[in-house]
Amino acid sequence: MKKSNLTALIGVLCFGATAVAVNALDAQTYQSVRNEPIQPIQPAVITEPEKVELGKMLFFEPRLSRSGFISCNSCHNLSRGGTDNLPTSIGHNWQEGPINSPTVLNSSLNLAQFWDGRAATLAEQAAGPIDNPLEMAYTHTLAIEVLRSIPEYVDLFEGIYGTRDITIDHVTDAIAVFEETLVTPNSRFDQWLLGDDEALTAQELRGYKTFKEIGCAACHYGEAVGGRDFHRMGLVQEYQTENPSMGRYEVTGKDADRFSFKVPTLRNVDKTYPYFHDGAVWTLEEATDIMAKLQLGRELPQEDIDNMVAFMKTLTGDQPQITIPLLPPSRPNTPRPKPFDSE
Amino acid sequence: MKKSNLTALIGVLCFGATAVAVNALDAQTYQSVRNEPIQPIQPAVITEPEKVELGKMLFFEPRLSRSGFISCNSCHNLSRGGTDNLPTSIGHNWQEGPINSPTVLNSSLNLAQFWDGRAATLAEQAAGPIDNPLEMAYTHTLAIEVLRSIPEYVDLFEGIYGTRDITIDHVTDAIAVFEETLVTPNSRFDQWLLGDDEALTAQELRGYKTFKEIGCAACHYGEAVGGRDFHRMGLVQEYQTENPSMGRYEVTGKDADRFSFKVPTLRNVDKTYPYFHDGAVWTLEEATDIMAKLQLGRELPQEDIDNMVAFMKTLTGDQPQITIPLLPPSRPNTPRPKPFDSE
Ligand code: HEC
Ligand code: HEC
Ligand code: HEC
Ligand code: HEC
Ligand SMILES: [Ca+2]
Ligand SMILES: [Ca+2]
Repeated sequence: MKKSNLTALIGVLCFGATAVAVNALDAQTYQSVRNEPIQPIQPAVITEPEKVELGKMLFFEPRLSRSGFISCNSCHNLSRGGTDNLPTSIGHNWQEGPINSPTVLNSSLNLAQFWDGRAATLAEQAAGPIDNPLEMAYTHTLAIEVLRSIPEYVDLFEGIYGTRDITIDHVTDAIAVFEETLVTPNSRFDQWLLGDDEALTAQELRGYKTFKEIGCAACHYGEAVGGRDFHRMGLVQEYQTENPSMGRYEVTGKDADRFSFKVPTLRNVDKTYPYFHDGAVWTLEEATDIMAKLQLGRELPQEDIDNMVAFMKTLTGDQPQITIPLLPPSRPNTPRPKPFDSE
Repeated sequence: MKKSNLTALIGVLCFGATAVAVNALDAQTYQSVRNEPIQPIQPAVITEPEKVELGKMLFFEPRLSRSGFISCNSCHNLSRGGTDNLPTSIGHNWQEGPINSPTVLNSSLNLAQFWDGRAATLAEQAAGPIDNPLEMAYTHTLAIEVLRSIPEYVDLFEGIYGTRDITIDHVTDAIAVFEETLVTPNSRFDQWLLGDDEALTAQELRGYKTFKEIGCAACHYGEAVGGRDFHRMGLVQEYQTENPSMGRYEVTGKDADRFSFKVPTLRNVDKTYPYFHDGAVWTLEEATDIMAKLQLGRELPQEDIDNMVAFMKTLTGDQPQITIPLLPPSRPNTPRPKPFDSE
């Protein structure tokens, strides 16, 4: 895997850039980036490191759940591409979730959050799981009471938000700012986009060519290779599923939006199996075959499928390097977890 | 919090020591260490870094469980002092575990593993949870099949064990070697042991003095401040609990071992609540009061309890700095998780 000077420069910039160097990057990136429907992912520029650190603690904090057992990272495991790799998630009391857990990696690049886009921002989204009875099954009031009872948290929030009066908005703001750092630059495909002709094999390039030619890139494009629009699942032919979700229709109530879902990112798609909103499909080969048939009305030869899968595997970028946060202990007045009395 | 030159040296040594420096440390440590029933924790000396890294992956690997959701770190959360901070654990299918989850921190210093000591070594212990129906609920055969289906794992095992034929013994060996690195040196108490008179406050020293004088150190001593013997819980007065465990008796069948448990480590005890084998006690104050009454027949004044709690909080050492492992994705032939059909 070769790196151009430019991607080496990006590598350097990830670890503490000066303002001058950032400007140099912007200039160089946009000089040499290929003119393609997919754009390279920019490394995160961290301007509020303390807030990112606090957001990371909260992302790994099981005490935001009723059981004291489930954190954001339970279902968006950063060891596993930001997903749980289950068809549908395991929530409080081992309840079966309604829909596949999407990756949090590069989620800041989405036009909106959730499969149906019902949350406009990451902060709005983050308020959802804590009091969702199928997920963390807690209340915002109790989650805040937990944090307020722990002096180390109170100090951290005060240092960042200037008040010891922690609110749910502070919590979701910090989580969102942490999530904004969860981008995956420097994939082999991005190295190629940035000018490195050697970064992709001939097969991968053929796969990318087909991906564009037959029309996949009409929906899967941009920095995230998806995440920019809602589209009907099963445009040409219906998708068979047991999953009751009506997708975007549940937000807009418009008939045209029935069974329409946010186009998922294909970044790190090798890691985000199983596929589709119902998590019913386990291999990229099968997902590709279904997409071609259902969205484009095409029966693809196996060779094209293999080539496109080879291309999609080049979209795995540098995964965020996460040092696990050390969570401060509960205190005598901290509300206690209730794992087994789920009345 | 002041540090002596010596503990500063230990700090340096944690991050890549030369052989010469390690010898220097040994010499100095044993010259200046105070003559006390508690000995300082030695930093881990890592001789097989690749094995440690593989063991870390396996420790965080939910695919060693039937559901694909539970890893060792679920119940021994390294963000939380190596425990789940629940009275008894949540296992597969949200089953309630039989006993409190002890910390994995410093577990290599125990005379044996489990509350009743039924596993002689960490490697022997690690085989337990994977096929325990109340914990990970998998089979060794399937867990090995998962690992063998993932080329990155096969390569890692081959690099370390010289064979592509992964066995459960390789798995538990790697996990045990990782666990041996989970020591917590450099607590304030150890700084004091190593000669820093300023490391403890007057109250903490008073607490330690009482701890020794009234007899706590008869059972809680050594590097781990516990972990060296089995003792009856409730020597002077009976412990009231709903928990059915008979402790060591279940291993030996001897009447004398009824209700005898491995003395838990008090290292990081501020983080390992709730306390006792049934996890029924949430504060160190209450645990101390109970210990004094039940083990020593003493009714302590609140001041003594407060002082001893202050002392015990100085036993929190440097927590292992863990970068979360990046787990390689499953492949089409990887056995799939079975989260919801727990027949
Ligand atoms: C029990 C499992 C579970 C937990 C816990 C959980 N999530 Fe999710 N998450 C999901 C599922 C399932 C979805 C998709 C829901 C939908 O689209 O209707 C989702 C969606 C998201 C999305 C939207 C991604 C996208 O592309 O649309 C983000 C961001 C996210 N979660 C972040 C978080 C954060 C932050 C937390 C903790 C505060 C959290 N999640 C806790 C399962 C979970
Ligand atoms: C008209 C829009 C559209 C076109 C064209 C399209 N897709 Fe999709 N794609 C979607 C939508 C919407 C989904 C989500 C469907 C769902 O989950 O029910 C999706 C899902 C996927 C997924 C699963 C991602 C995941 O994480 O679940 C893959 C892989 C994929 N598409 C690849 C392709 C390929 C390859 C092509 C071309 C053969 C293609 N898509 C063409 C809209 C489109
Ligand atoms: C579902 C919860 C759960 C899971 C998963 C789990 N453990 Fe445990 N662990 C426990 C409990 C509970 C005990 C105490 C059992 C007993 O003493 O009878 C324990 C005991 C231990 C001990 C002994 C510590 C001591 O001081 O005696 C070690 C070491 C350990 N586990 C390591 C692991 C490893 C390694 C894994 C993964 C392979 C693992 N655990 C998975 C709950 C769990
Ligand atoms: C005769 C032996 C013995 C003596 C003396 C003793 N302990 Fe213990 N200690 C134990 C045993 C055994 C346990 C575990 C009991 C159980 O879990 O049921 C324990 C548990 C504890 C715990 C809970 C640790 C945990 O993680 O669950 C604390 C705290 C503790 N002891 C402190 C003290 C203090 C303070 C004293 C003196 C007042 C003391 N002990 C005296 C044997 C002893
Ligand atoms: Ca998925
Ligand atoms: Ca405990």
